[in-house]
Amino acid sequence: MNLVTFANPVFQYYAVAAALMIVKMMSQGWITVFRMLKVNAGFRNPEDARKSPMNPDPSPAQLLPNEYVERSRRLHGNDIENIPLFLVAGLLYVCTAPSAALAIGLYGVYVLSRLAHFTIVMTHRSHEARALFWTIGSVIIYFMAGAIIWAAVRSWIAA
Amino acid sequence: MNLVTFANPVFQYYAVAAALMIVKMMSQGWITVFRMLKVNAGFRNPEDARKSPMNPDPSPAQLLPNEYVERSRRLHGNDIENIPLFLVAGLLYVCTAPSAALAIGLYGVYVLSRLAHFTIVMTHRSHEARALFWTIGSVIIYFMAGAIIWAAVRSWIAA
Amino acid sequence: MNLVTFANPVFQYYAVAAALMIVKMMSQGWITVFRMLKVNAGFRNPEDARKSPMNPDPSPAQLLPNEYVERSRRLHGNDIENIPLFLVAGLLYVCTAPSAALAIGLYGVYVLSRLAHFTIVMTHRSHEARALFWTIGSVIIYFMAGAIIWAAVRSWIAA
Repeated sequence: MNLVTFANPVFQYYAVAAALMIVKMMSQGWITVFRMLKVNAGFRNPEDARKSPMNPDPSPAQLLPNEYVERSRRLHGNDIENIPLFLVAGLLYVCTAPSAALAIGLYGVYVLSRLAHFTIVMTHRSHEARALFWTIGSVIIYFMAGAIIWAAVRSWIAA
Repeated sequence: MNLVTFANPVFQYYAVAAALMIVKMMSQGWITVFRMLKVNAGFRNPEDARKSPMNPDPSPAQLLPNEYVERSRRLHGNDIENIPLFLVAGLLYVCTAPSAALAIGLYGVYVLSRLAHFTIVMTHRSHEARALFWTIGSVIIYFMAGAIIWAAVRSWIAA
Repeated sequence: MNLVTFANPVFQYYAVAAALMIVKMMSQGWITVFRMLKVNAGFRNPEDARKSPMNPDPSPAQLLPNEYVERSRRLHGNDIENIPLFLVAGLLYVCTAPSAALAIGLYGVYVLSRLAHFTIVMTHRSHEARALFWTIGSVIIYFMAGAIIWAAVRSWIAA
């Protein structure tokens, strides 16, 4: 039986959650670009402080770190540490043929936990709130990893 | 119908594009290694400035940041933000059963846009040129994410 | 024939290796958290040095870089550069229908090479030892990328 197909409801929900997380992580790059252009700082390549049509008035200060820009870079770094793991763990979890209700719950809560984490960092809320939602996402990834290993072990027992 | 198979032409082209991007990103690590050894600087672990068979003449200066090395690390960082998203979005896009011509175009232009981005950064070209090719890759990932969500919505409408 | 299924022994071994690598990379984040709390330093968000229930005695020194914490962050950075490539290359390699013995060998050696790399960095061992095990993992990823491209080329020749 093929599970990696849009004919499988669990795969449909996984695919939507994965696509939303891909859009989220890609967009963090655009937020960094927006912030660099807004404050005209936080650039990192020396050539970004050269005179050009889009940079008619260059200055070495454009290459200095800027906290407003760095906040978006740190969020991007957190996405990088987490979202690729969700994308792959979520797909392999589809192959374990989980109950649709459980799978939809895990995918949905994961997406919501990452959006909450994003909002908390963007609005400078407390470390505790940020840690809570990062932990929720982390536990979901551990759970799916455990379910994947268990599915392999079940195959070996059944063989 | 199984689409995640080398019997599917779209999957064949995805697999080649994905393998090329994997080789590209893996090789950026080797370029960083080559640059560190060439300038004997840019190392980051304190133990890398210890005396050893490959480091007979150690110095604390080996641990100082070095722009020649950092350029390769920034490129690697950009790969990390983009290529894993392409690898997963591209695979899920295969499952949407797109027209082969469109899929081959998207995969091909993505690979070319990343190679252009790489060449531009390695040769210190303008921010505008770099931004253009990063944007092309970014738009392709957004398009594939949209197509993935649309395939799920279509399934729900048809159900 | 569907290969992306727990009915395929190669996929079973891939899934276990992938889940172990997902757990490994996720856990590096927890090691960083543990180290930040242990030394009460190495935090990076300004709001982490605010008074709160979990931080009753805040200090600007909490935001200073700390080598004990940075070591875990560098390991996490190395995971990020390598593990997502293994996760995707390993899955596409399943689709090339390799011999089970070869596939199990590659997945097993990859996992062991990353655990060796982890142990070497955590215990401050030599650059040479670290480079050796990183190289082993890197060669396995190149090999799988080559096998993926070759599988596509074979399909085109056969067509």
